[in-house]
Amino acid sequence: MRMYDIICKKRDGFSLTSQEIQFFIDGVTNKTIPDYQTSSLLMAIVLKGMNKEETAALTLAMMKSGDIIDLSQIEGIKVDKHSTGGVGDKTSLVLGPLVASFGVKVAKMSGRGLGHTGGTLDKLEAIPGTKIEIERDAFIKQVNEIGCAIIGQSGHLGPADKKLYALRDVTGTVESIPLIASSIMSKKLASGSDTILLDVKFGSGAFMKTLEDAKKLAEAMVAIGKSLKRDTRAILTDMDQPLGLAVGNALEVKEAIATLKGEGPSDLTTLCLEASAIMLEQAGVVKNAKDAYPALEAKIKSGEALLKLVEMIKAQGGDETYITNPEKFVKSAHVFEVLATSAGYVQHIDSLAIGIASMKLGGGRETYEDVIDMSAGIVLNKKVGDQVQIGDRLALVYTNKSDDVSRPILVDVHDAFTYSKTKFEVKPIIHAYIK
Amino acid sequence: MRMYDIICKKRDGFSLTSQEIQFFIDGVTNKTIPDYQTSSLLMAIVLKGMNKEETAALTLAMMKSGDIIDLSQIEGIKVDKHSTGGVGDKTSLVLGPLVASFGVKVAKMSGRGLGHTGGTLDKLEAIPGTKIEIERDAFIKQVNEIGCAIIGQSGHLGPADKKLYALRDVTGTVESIPLIASSIMSKKLASGSDTILLDVKFGSGAFMKTLEDAKKLAEAMVAIGKSLKRDTRAILTDMDQPLGLAVGNALEVKEAIATLKGEGPSDLTTLCLEASAIMLEQAGVVKNAKDAYPALEAKIKSGEALLKLVEMIKAQGGDETYITNPEKFVKSAHVFEVLATSAGYVQHIDSLAIGIASMKLGGGRETYEDVIDMSAGIVLNKKVGDQVQIGDRLALVYTNKSDDVSRPILVDVHDAFTYSKTKFEVKPIIHAYIK
Repeated sequence: MRMYDIICKKRDGFSLTSQEIQFFIDGVTNKTIPDYQTSSLLMAIVLKGMNKEETAALTLAMMKSGDIIDLSQIEGIKVDKHSTGGVGDKTSLVLGPLVASFGVKVAKMSGRGLGHTGGTLDKLEAIPGTKIEIERDAFIKQVNEIGCAIIGQSGHLGPADKKLYALRDVTGTVESIPLIASSIMSKKLASGSDTILLDVKFGSGAFMKTLEDAKKLAEAMVAIGKSLKRDTRAILTDMDQPLGLAVGNALEVKEAIATLKGEGPSDLTTLCLEASAIMLEQAGVVKNAKDAYPALEAKIKSGEALLKLVEMIKAQGGDETYITNPEKFVKSAHVFEVLATSAGYVQHIDSLAIGIASMKLGGGRETYEDVIDMSAGIVLNKKVGDQVQIGDRLALVYTNKSDDVSRPILVDVHDAFTYSKTKFEVKPIIHAYIK
Repeated sequence: MRMYDIICKKRDGFSLTSQEIQFFIDGVTNKTIPDYQTSSLLMAIVLKGMNKEETAALTLAMMKSGDIIDLSQIEGIKVDKHSTGGVGDKTSLVLGPLVASFGVKVAKMSGRGLGHTGGTLDKLEAIPGTKIEIERDAFIKQVNEIGCAIIGQSGHLGPADKKLYALRDVTGTVESIPLIASSIMSKKLASGSDTILLDVKFGSGAFMKTLEDAKKLAEAMVAIGKSLKRDTRAILTDMDQPLGLAVGNALEVKEAIATLKGEGPSDLTTLCLEASAIMLEQAGVVKNAKDAYPALEAKIKSGEALLKLVEMIKAQGGDETYITNPEKFVKSAHVFEVLATSAGYVQHIDSLAIGIASMKLGGGRETYEDVIDMSAGIVLNKKVGDQVQIGDRLALVYTNKSDDVSRPILVDVHDAFTYSKTKFEVKPIIHAYIK
């Protein structure tokens, strides 16, 4: 078998066999295929596509290129959830404890934030003492005892995917549904959970800009899961405004805590309840997701859901009194008000602009080396559909940066809002369910 | 400007500006663009194409990436001809002297053979003493005095094209009309002649397998020439059988000599006369190519055309008595007869098979390091359309290889012939003229 022939076959629009895909991924992993051949094949894949069988074979080969996490020592059903990344997305901090409070196991590996999107690991580290690097045995023990753990990626997961992604990033070959789907799914499948729920976001702050593209990606990922016999579902959620009100690490943890108490913003609460319900259906706790709502609300009302977060943080070495007394979180030196200079109904809040503003305020990383200011970020006072009068507060901006740095960012936050003259119906946060 | 954005633009089907193409070629020449980005763009070009303006800009940028030969010290019109490569193609050895006998200047740079196709330089070297590496001043002096010279590529022509071609060869990105057309034309334009005649071959022994593809390539090259204000024409010629009867270096030189005497095979003679007529029209010697035939035939009959070859070989240090006494050419130790085992009318002679057979007999190179046996090759006795009886001689095979090596090659030569039961009309050698 020769890489040259594989390239020509895909270039000419033919499907690759699983042996050919395995040969390619082996060559990428062992570095026997030069980058210039890999990037040529990647471009051919971007332009000629891959069918379901090829995409599944690619996912499997990438998954097998590295470690596969063995969670068999964890009793019960292990559920996992993955978001394609958004602004203000703190759902993992809510879903993990909430679902675990039903006895379902959540052994989750998360990532860090870069650019305009945040990362769950960074948010966890806003709680002093919380460790996200935990040995395999301790991780399994924690999940068995408490029901949930959220840690950094351990082991040598998907080296082929890592290598391919680095190359795709500089050769214009990121934009391909089969390549994106197999990249995400190879890591999720290697993480070892029994079920996967994918939260595919679309809109200005998301990787997928349109509902159509998000749907294609979700369908491709669900098809991969199915063909590899893993229960995989997806929801398509709106990222045409930040999720919830808070953007920034400590601010988002506080909002997650509030949500676990039943006091969260309505879009975040809805998303967390619906996603939890699907995960409970996947775990077999309920027959139909819709049957789960009364029980979910009861877990919140009784305080069991919040207690699970307390237990998890304590087990991971964090100071759990921050969860019970969120006012303990460090506060930024400056808080600025952003006021409306227009009147109307908020039509859109540019998530990308808000995400970048939060990053510039110190709440995110521009490069992997940057250190995050946990207190920095933005809390919105208005969401899409809300009526605004001139002079109304649109948002509070938290930062330790100087006035000179902050002032232009306040303008960016202000300009992220656009208005409609007339009232309109706000679309639900979840646009579609795919299974 | 970033290579990344250029890749994405082409991937998305947009046209590149000449500045973007210049940036790309500069980066290839200066090695500031990594190969993996180049190959990704090349694949995008293969699959998304390039319009006439882009192809012309690419040609110009590649041409300017290296030396441009200045032929201004040669008086009169300089004509050039380029063949895309075939089996038995010795036209340059006929056309050069024939056209030069009209006072038109032929300052030609040729190449060597590889694989199943021969090279004019190798054929010249079959004449003892002939030098193909000649200093610039001596080259110009020779053309001014005698009217023609055929030498190896001098100077540093098209380094960007050289680099790109090497990469295309291993990344499945050779098959693209704009890339092939710009590669050929960048070198031809850099060679400095006033007019270019392209002989685009199609069929089993040619780079382009179909008339349609050959036509597209010819049109693309003529369009490049036009947009860069160089008189460029093309003819599409049949490579569904070898050109003429002889394949192999000394054998082909002898056939070229015979053709210059008016004793050549009819397809080769026709092609040489028609191509010369077009070149004379391009040079302004005749108003219409068809007016040139009587004069061309007169130059052959008078011996002036052959005399020009004698003068050229002498000027390049070769033993010109080989031209006047072709029986002096070294003979191979063995001559085998290939006899027909079928009867009928020859329908097709697989040029690729004949070219490879000649190479294996010692007449060609499998790698650039191989040394050619000038005496080896094949002389056909039958051509397409000829009637064959069982036992008729199909070809004579010349070689210095052992019987063990030769026997299977004789079978290949035999099997290269296919037959029709019924008589049919033979198509003319030139299928189309493009200008």
